[in-house]
Amino acid sequence: MATAAVANGGNAKAAAGRLVSIYSEVQTSRIDHPLPLPSVLRSPFKVGDGPKSSAAGNPDEIAKLFPNLFGQPSATLVPTAAPPSEMSQKLKIGVVLSGGQAPGGHNVICGMFDYLQDRAMGSTLFGFKGGPAGIMRGKYVELTADYVYPYRNQGGFDMIRSGRDKIETPEQFKQAEETALRLDLDGLVVIGGDDSNTNACLLAENFRSKSMKTRVIGCPKTIDGDLKCKEVPTSFGFDTACKIYSEMIGNVMVDARSTGKYYHFVRLMGRAASHITLECALQTHPNVTIIGEEVAVKKQTLKNVTDYITDVICKRADLGFNYGVILIPEGLIDFIPEVQQLISELNEILAHDVVDEGGLWKNKLREQSHALFDFLPKAIQEQLMLERDPHGNVQVAKIETEKMLISMVETELEKRTQEGKYKGQFKGQSHFFGYEGRCGLPTNFDSMYCYALGYAAGALLHAGKTGLISSVGNLAAPVEEWTVGGTALTSLMDVERRHGKFKPVIKKAMVELEGAPFKKFASMRDEWAIKNRYISPGPIQFSGPASNDINHTLLLELGAQA
Amino acid sequence: MATAAVANGGNAKAAAGRLVSIYSEVQTSRIDHPLPLPSVLRSPFKVGDGPKSSAAGNPDEIAKLFPNLFGQPSATLVPTAAPPSEMSQKLKIGVVLSGGQAPGGHNVICGMFDYLQDRAMGSTLFGFKGGPAGIMRGKYVELTADYVYPYRNQGGFDMIRSGRDKIETPEQFKQAEETALRLDLDGLVVIGGDDSNTNACLLAENFRSKSMKTRVIGCPKTIDGDLKCKEVPTSFGFDTACKIYSEMIGNVMVDARSTGKYYHFVRLMGRAASHITLECALQTHPNVTIIGEEVAVKKQTLKNVTDYITDVICKRADLGFNYGVILIPEGLIDFIPEVQQLISELNEILAHDVVDEGGLWKNKLREQSHALFDFLPKAIQEQLMLERDPHGNVQVAKIETEKMLISMVETELEKRTQEGKYKGQFKGQSHFFGYEGRCGLPTNFDSMYCYALGYAAGALLHAGKTGLISSVGNLAAPVEEWTVGGTALTSLMDVERRHGKFKPVIKKAMVELEGAPFKKFASMRDEWAIKNRYISPGPIQFSGPASNDINHTLLLELGAQA
Repeated sequence: MATAAVANGGNAKAAAGRLVSIYSEVQTSRIDHPLPLPSVLRSPFKVGDGPKSSAAGNPDEIAKLFPNLFGQPSATLVPTAAPPSEMSQKLKIGVVLSGGQAPGGHNVICGMFDYLQDRAMGSTLFGFKGGPAGIMRGKYVELTADYVYPYRNQGGFDMIRSGRDKIETPEQFKQAEETALRLDLDGLVVIGGDDSNTNACLLAENFRSKSMKTRVIGCPKTIDGDLKCKEVPTSFGFDTACKIYSEMIGNVMVDARSTGKYYHFVRLMGRAASHITLECALQTHPNVTIIGEEVAVKKQTLKNVTDYITDVICKRADLGFNYGVILIPEGLIDFIPEVQQLISELNEILAHDVVDEGGLWKNKLREQSHALFDFLPKAIQEQLMLERDPHGNVQVAKIETEKMLISMVETELEKRTQEGKYKGQFKGQSHFFGYEGRCGLPTNFDSMYCYALGYAAGALLHAGKTGLISSVGNLAAPVEEWTVGGTALTSLMDVERRHGKFKPVIKKAMVELEGAPFKKFASMRDEWAIKNRYISPGPIQFSGPASNDINHTLLLELGAQA
Repeated sequence: MATAAVANGGNAKAAAGRLVSIYSEVQTSRIDHPLPLPSVLRSPFKVGDGPKSSAAGNPDEIAKLFPNLFGQPSATLVPTAAPPSEMSQKLKIGVVLSGGQAPGGHNVICGMFDYLQDRAMGSTLFGFKGGPAGIMRGKYVELTADYVYPYRNQGGFDMIRSGRDKIETPEQFKQAEETALRLDLDGLVVIGGDDSNTNACLLAENFRSKSMKTRVIGCPKTIDGDLKCKEVPTSFGFDTACKIYSEMIGNVMVDARSTGKYYHFVRLMGRAASHITLECALQTHPNVTIIGEEVAVKKQTLKNVTDYITDVICKRADLGFNYGVILIPEGLIDFIPEVQQLISELNEILAHDVVDEGGLWKNKLREQSHALFDFLPKAIQEQLMLERDPHGNVQVAKIETEKMLISMVETELEKRTQEGKYKGQFKGQSHFFGYEGRCGLPTNFDSMYCYALGYAAGALLHAGKTGLISSVGNLAAPVEEWTVGGTALTSLMDVERRHGKFKPVIKKAMVELEGAPFKKFASMRDEWAIKNRYISPGPIQFSGPASNDINHTLLLELGAQA
């Protein structure tokens, strides 16, 4: 039970400047875990350019928004006898973590650090503290070998922490410029999700337009798995988070089968897209899985979703199974048009009208919304009326969808019991798996993938590139065969109209109903519903069986799994 | 990502009789994981008797309740040249799982099975299905090598499932006798917690009083860790459950430190005793840990608990830390005398009086209870008024203590902010870690411990013993040096007066404030509160670092850790 004390300057909040962080045996064992690099990164390489790029949508508008960057080719690293001369220079580089945590972020930074050590000796790496605000306020720390060492292969973002601020206004761009000039930055790496990478590209465009030397490279981070495209097959953290949730789901499945008397309703993190829920379903084979994108495409109502779950419960009861496991994406409510409509009406009413105890206010709701409101369990009605964000809007994120569905299923089952259509016993148990998956120790896959992403980001900056997102591909092959390069961020973009202006956005990659992961799930779910095909993946292992496995979603999308 | 299909007759609900259960790679890899036995079990042994035993309390009453068993010596297995003649006979044995799941239960059964194969070839092992009800109804399955094989080192109780029925009434005892006679049982092993082992002893006494040959041996099962004594150093499942919860807590800690803006309130399973919460604290070093037994001994009120948490939050805010992790035992409310008083008054009022909207009914509460009720957050007030069990009692188990405390801390912090005593930011996040820990893959420790317990249970029955609980000791030493024997169940018992009669009970082992685990925690908690000494144990590993570690509670109680 020995614990190792590791010198760790990362949380130097205390006056003494240096804290000692205590590591568990497993954490300690991870620090020196070897990280193989793709073979192209192991010998001299140069950066080759592909064809001119376009945009994901509205290329004309994107071209206007990014006059200096639009059309950039994607870059691919290729072996060479001797690297080009610009790749012998020393660099000053900054790095920032943006948005929610994802396992592997530290390894991106370690990859960058090692790149500079290996290929640009004498370079300097600055870590901006607390997210983009650290850039604007010039808050940073110089990352040294001793500083980064204890964070190798560790979870969390605590090396330099993260933040959700955005560099958006002219003043904020100005602040970023000042920091870049003061630190004489050759480059900046932004590790973040779709918004942060859009921001990175705007920053790259801005620096370029001012003829500053500071270049910007993005890295794809989000456990939600919704930042991906052909060249960027996955965002880091998704693999680890899904495996942590699947461990818990698998345990709950064994529990369900052992007791034979509970229906476990598990809500999983992931507001915008249902990739996490889909991946966990492929890993564990639950009886029911709700995929938000399918609900939206099929324009399902809350009643449809409730009925679908209730139907499965009834069929299982007929077979003698009064237990089961049901997965629900955190963002489910956002996918249901009628709920969106109700919430927008409620926002209006709550902002402008008197809400009387007697409920006369409800007559201001449209007929469909009124009916939906009455259909909702009382606790959810109260949540909708009470919880408001600072802008006065209903806080959908606070609605415990899993409890709401349990309550609605109970009501429907009571009805069917009275009609003689259901004779089973129903006991719902609710779970939310969220925060515990964001900061776990990264899997071997995320550790290696992030290390390569960071190493590649260093190489791209060294080669003078800007406005690219670090791209590591061919991920189903052994690490040596992974491809490495950068993809033009503008090529991932479309525009959205906001407040009368076009805003560039990297569209979130949603679950595609025609994609291989969903199709595999759809082909098996009826069997999973009725028969018990539960799989319990167990805890993530760092050596031995399954320790180098890659998640199903990625393998299916790469065509490496049937 | 290969998954292995394992023949698995255990869930033979389907008409076909045999289902194929799908195993993950990690599950599959565990099946053949070697299970070393204590050296005394590896060569010929006999059973030696110790001195006459007494009872944990009221020996005269226990002697009256168990005239045939009281005073039995404990048994110790010792090496011998040739085993005694009775240990060459074939046996017919039954086994039953009783109560909530705990990781390792399958290995107890596998240990029994292997004992019979190794030492009593030609014996038969019956598994009673669905808990004690399986004994009463004569529902069983013959456990064969093929049948038990896929469950080796696997979590859950799904091999024969469990149940919470009790064999209590004369009719029920009669049913058990009939089953024992029909199956010609030489012995029965009851795997369960304190209640189930008390029941096992009553059954042993009953069989003996009828001069039946059927002997009964108990095995200590409960993740709560509250069934233990000198000879039975721990109950199985505690090690695994605490490690699963600690993995999650450690992840949440890294998250807290990375974001720097959340207080995570984590409620942990364990109603009666706070061992799980204490062990998780020792593994992870949270900022605040509430131990129910301490709250009870110090007669703390809910306000005291709230103030203690709030004080730590304020001190941390002064140091610039607006985040933290707080552990709460599931049973906290049961430890607070004033809450117990309020609930008993509410039960009375709700049963007999009209509850008026205006709140006049509250005047029927005693002054202190009235004040406490008003102090409670509205949501908790509603829960107390609405949720009732079938007997009309308030369902304390349904109260989300972690949310209640967040709400009460918020109120207290608002007060202090107005008084100028607190300038921090507070955001609470609630978690309940429960079911996901009961059915995980057992750790190496629980796998080996359970296997030895089961093997020993077989040996004790073979040697003609009854009314003992299987006891494996010296657990801090290598497995070869573990001691093996049986402890008289009557020696663990005391009596309680219920409905005018003495009832035998095995007293739950509570957290001792003078015990080594609590003392270690108490000596460190002030430092943990203010400084960030978080440890993230990471996922349970089955090979490599920490894979053979034993929990802190056990090591400290054995004096093997300072």
